[in-house]
Amino acid sequence: MQDCIYTAAESVERSGLKGLPLFKACQDSFFQKMAKRALTQKHSKGKILFLHGDEARYFYFIQKGLVRLFRETLDGSQVTVDILPAGQVLALRTIFEDDLYPYSAEIVENAEITSYPLSYLKDEIQTNNTLALNMLSSMSRCKRRKEQEIEHREIQNAPQRIGCFLLRLIPQNKEGPVTIHLPYDKTLVAARLGMQPETFSRALSKLKRETGIKIKGATIELDTVQQLVQFSCAACSSEFPCKDLQQREF
Amino acid sequence: MQDCIYTAAESVERSGLKGLPLFKACQDSFFQKMAKRALTQKHSKGKILFLHGDEARYFYFIQKGLVRLFRETLDGSQVTVDILPAGQVLALRTIFEDDLYPYSAEIVENAEITSYPLSYLKDEIQTNNTLALNMLSSMSRCKRRKEQEIEHREIQNAPQRIGCFLLRLIPQNKEGPVTIHLPYDKTLVAARLGMQPETFSRALSKLKRETGIKIKGATIELDTVQQLVQFSCAACSSEFPCKDLQQREF
Repeated sequence: MQDCIYTAAESVERSGLKGLPLFKACQDSFFQKMAKRALTQKHSKGKILFLHGDEARYFYFIQKGLVRLFRETLDGSQVTVDILPAGQVLALRTIFEDDLYPYSAEIVENAEITSYPLSYLKDEIQTNNTLALNMLSSMSRCKRRKEQEIEHREIQNAPQRIGCFLLRLIPQNKEGPVTIHLPYDKTLVAARLGMQPETFSRALSKLKRETGIKIKGATIELDTVQQLVQFSCAACSSEFPCKDLQQREF
Repeated sequence: MQDCIYTAAESVERSGLKGLPLFKACQDSFFQKMAKRALTQKHSKGKILFLHGDEARYFYFIQKGLVRLFRETLDGSQVTVDILPAGQVLALRTIFEDDLYPYSAEIVENAEITSYPLSYLKDEIQTNNTLALNMLSSMSRCKRRKEQEIEHREIQNAPQRIGCFLLRLIPQNKEGPVTIHLPYDKTLVAARLGMQPETFSRALSKLKRETGIKIKGATIELDTVQQLVQFSCAACSSEFPCKDLQQREF
């Protein structure tokens, strides 16, 4: 399944690209130019959108579904870089990476994805300094998030890291009881956190015991956010709520 | 010890800022403006240059010495983000981070460091699009390096990670026997790799046994680079030599 489901003219309306803070400095003429080459396609779970090191011609906006970004080592191990839901863009930074995709992308939940030519973005950024500055801010946030991941892998234990993952799903300044729905299945959450499924399962049970949170399938209930903040954020150099909860990948 | 050892006029000549690829798009007028506010100071080992979360007014160029970037968690653990030698800049990205330093910086080897006002850089980047694009390329490389660190912490064992650290010290395309000098003492190498000193020591011995490299104090001898490449790069998604060996922090 890989059908063009919208015409280019419809894509510009449906894409949501125009609504992204990253592109707020772009004029209508940019979006119109993009729309002429935009292509929205359906992709089934399991499809590889592109491979790490492939020549990069397009960046993507996820309309529906989930995309897993990953890299593969020479000896065959896979490492999950991120898992992106609807509303996110991917492969934008390729224009600064020798025009090669810096990771592979796999559809992990049936998806609708719009592709746009990177060459148009490259042209735009050559003359639109505000777009360049917005990209710098966005990339700086992403980099801070990666540094935080390194920090957590160094000093947080597995239950604390799951606690941090859950806290990131809660709206900022939320008070009182909270219900969290996992955004994807536990195997993917484990992969995103770089844990084996059995490690994840044991760590989740420990998190439940130590914090008193309630877990029913993919739903987690907290009496208060503080249950997790006290447990996870004590072993972190950032204060809750984190500042980097906006755009995910780049 | 924290004396101004050069006048501003001398600093512009000695600083090397002008020689950095990042600033190649800047005109002489930018460097002259910077020079008027540049201040080169000596700092003794142990001095804290700035703290994570402090209001950021300056970025820095390391003329001599070593600087450790780190973060501290609420429960008092420290995590080393990077260790920067002479020739590197630090705290540049602060202008995209709410004007707060995103880490703390400690002098770990007596240093001479030039400070420059971030406000001038901020002014310049508002109108100099090529500088913004160069910064995007540089930050993209830094981000790739952070992603590689996450990957290595997930799938490489400690000896493989030390092997990778050593490979990064070897000039690209080097053939035949190689002698590597550790750029700083082993305690700092361990901190940079997020290992306890005893873990590092055991892993270094294992690396020696498994690859046949020779270690004498801070000097490491290889018959050929392949000894380490086969051992470390098999568990990595990038091929040797890595593309991100240029500018370190941002």
